[in-house]
Amino acid sequence: MPHPSPRPVVIREVGLRDGLQSIATIVPTEHKRAWLAAAHAAGQREIEVGSFVPARLLPQLADTAELLAYARTLPGLKASVLVPNLKGAERALDGDAHLMILPLSASHAHSLANLRKTPDEVVAELGRIRAARDASGRKTLIEGGVGTAFGCTIQGEVPVSEVLRLLQALLDAGADRVSLADTVGYADPGAVARLFEQALKIAGERFCCGHFHDTRGLALANVAAALDLGVARFDASLAGIGGCPHAPGASGNATTEDLAFMLEAMGHHTGLDLDALLRLRAQVVGWIPGEPTHGALWRAGLPGTFRPARASAR
Amino acid sequence: MPHPSPRPVVIREVGLRDGLQSIATIVPTEHKRAWLAAAHAAGQREIEVGSFVPARLLPQLADTAELLAYARTLPGLKASVLVPNLKGAERALDGDAHLMILPLSASHAHSLANLRKTPDEVVAELGRIRAARDASGRKTLIEGGVGTAFGCTIQGEVPVSEVLRLLQALLDAGADRVSLADTVGYADPGAVARLFEQALKIAGERFCCGHFHDTRGLALANVAAALDLGVARFDASLAGIGGCPHAPGASGNATTEDLAFMLEAMGHHTGLDLDALLRLRAQVVGWIPGEPTHGALWRAGLPGTFRPARASAR
Repeated sequence: MPHPSPRPVVIREVGLRDGLQSIATIVPTEHKRAWLAAAHAAGQREIEVGSFVPARLLPQLADTAELLAYARTLPGLKASVLVPNLKGAERALDGDAHLMILPLSASHAHSLANLRKTPDEVVAELGRIRAARDASGRKTLIEGGVGTAFGCTIQGEVPVSEVLRLLQALLDAGADRVSLADTVGYADPGAVARLFEQALKIAGERFCCGHFHDTRGLALANVAAALDLGVARFDASLAGIGGCPHAPGASGNATTEDLAFMLEAMGHHTGLDLDALLRLRAQVVGWIPGEPTHGALWRAGLPGTFRPARASAR
Repeated sequence: MPHPSPRPVVIREVGLRDGLQSIATIVPTEHKRAWLAAAHAAGQREIEVGSFVPARLLPQLADTAELLAYARTLPGLKASVLVPNLKGAERALDGDAHLMILPLSASHAHSLANLRKTPDEVVAELGRIRAARDASGRKTLIEGGVGTAFGCTIQGEVPVSEVLRLLQALLDAGADRVSLADTVGYADPGAVARLFEQALKIAGERFCCGHFHDTRGLALANVAAALDLGVARFDASLAGIGGCPHAPGASGNATTEDLAFMLEAMGHHTGLDLDALLRLRAQVVGWIPGEPTHGALWRAGLPGTFRPARASAR
């Protein structure tokens, strides 16, 4: 059985973006700065700090430029931002983000409803973003993130062939990396194994990240299936904040601290201090009273036998 | 990558035993009978109906004999009971249970604290139960269930070698089947793969069931790891009721309806009607107001694209 050798695995924190954009509470910038600082101190080295969408659409993320500037002062931190289009990408380049992520929905219906563009129009936009990046002289990486990769609440089935076609199209258009997202929690470990195996064949080293929602409780099982294939970067949100607009109260993102526990227990080095993450979780939960939060580790605590994975594990 | 071919997988319902013994509310016998009837109607064919322990210890399960008698009237239902010792086993034989499960704790400290016996004394008790069963003329099967198989809150580490030694000892003493339980939620998918691979080598076809607690959110990921090895029976509790006395409010058992969704989505036929299970869940939750319940599927509902696995899948 594979369960591959222990190796470094990155948890990319998306709580400040995917988490906070999904709840009504507007967290003050000073709290977000404290979150960034504490996440960095707990060992997090890749954090999505916000989204360059118009503030009238997502007032929760209106301070993204300020947070990006602050994140750039934290040593070793790779700060990413979501950009919906070229205009957002220009702001990411202005802010010298390490990475900008352009979301694409493999569901045509979802793409039209959410982004007002067809998937192929988003691919074309990525081409323009690539040209802008190359002209800017910045080193900002470009990630194309294919969402609704396992199905869609609006359209229903999303053919695997279409997901793979769009991954290839993003790479051809100039994406430095691509990733896959189960935006609505439709994935299961079998479907993950099948799709990711194909995606890795297409993207190879340029395959970057798996983004799983815990809408139906399968986020960590889905991560484990992708891990088996060698995927080594996963998005997650502290306290599982965010993510399921079509099912109020349902779990959203994979929970950072639970995922970190699973990975470390399996021997995969994350570089994270779990006790520090649990303290930060308590602090962040205190900033968003009444909002749904998730996860199990915070109640039970770490096993008495728990040992962090060794950094030297490969 | 393995993710083995779809095949029938059994979810053994333990909510009426492991679930109800762990909460303060005493559910009336008439409600338990309704639960059994509805679970049977939803397709459940293996149910642990209770435990033959003294009623003064577990008043919640004092009606086990009555429930066993009722369960024996439901066509095709295999009714199991937990038995702590020979005395309990005699009651299981009297009630003509299909299966009696003798729990053994691989942690010596936990075994002494909970059962007031060493693990080897429990093995000897299984030998006496086997003799009684053989003398009775009953067909009641005997399962030896090795708990704290991944560690223990009292003792800490539980050596794999000790777990495997006890599995072999139970088989040698006359167990028809053996199973493994992560009683305190210490397992991770890597540890599951390692231990279950060894256990399957020892027990072969006599390996029966995996029992995972969701204390730290990993129950379904752990099930998926065991599934990869070919394990085809898992314990679970409706609404995740029960299970974690050392961490109040923490998740307990794997949640039946979420596990059923995962298995069916992966193409493994469970024979379960998920909509009926979700209706039963709502009913049972209404019987235990204020008690912690768990699971995610009930909020989000089934994916629009969900199709039950085909019975013909192998």
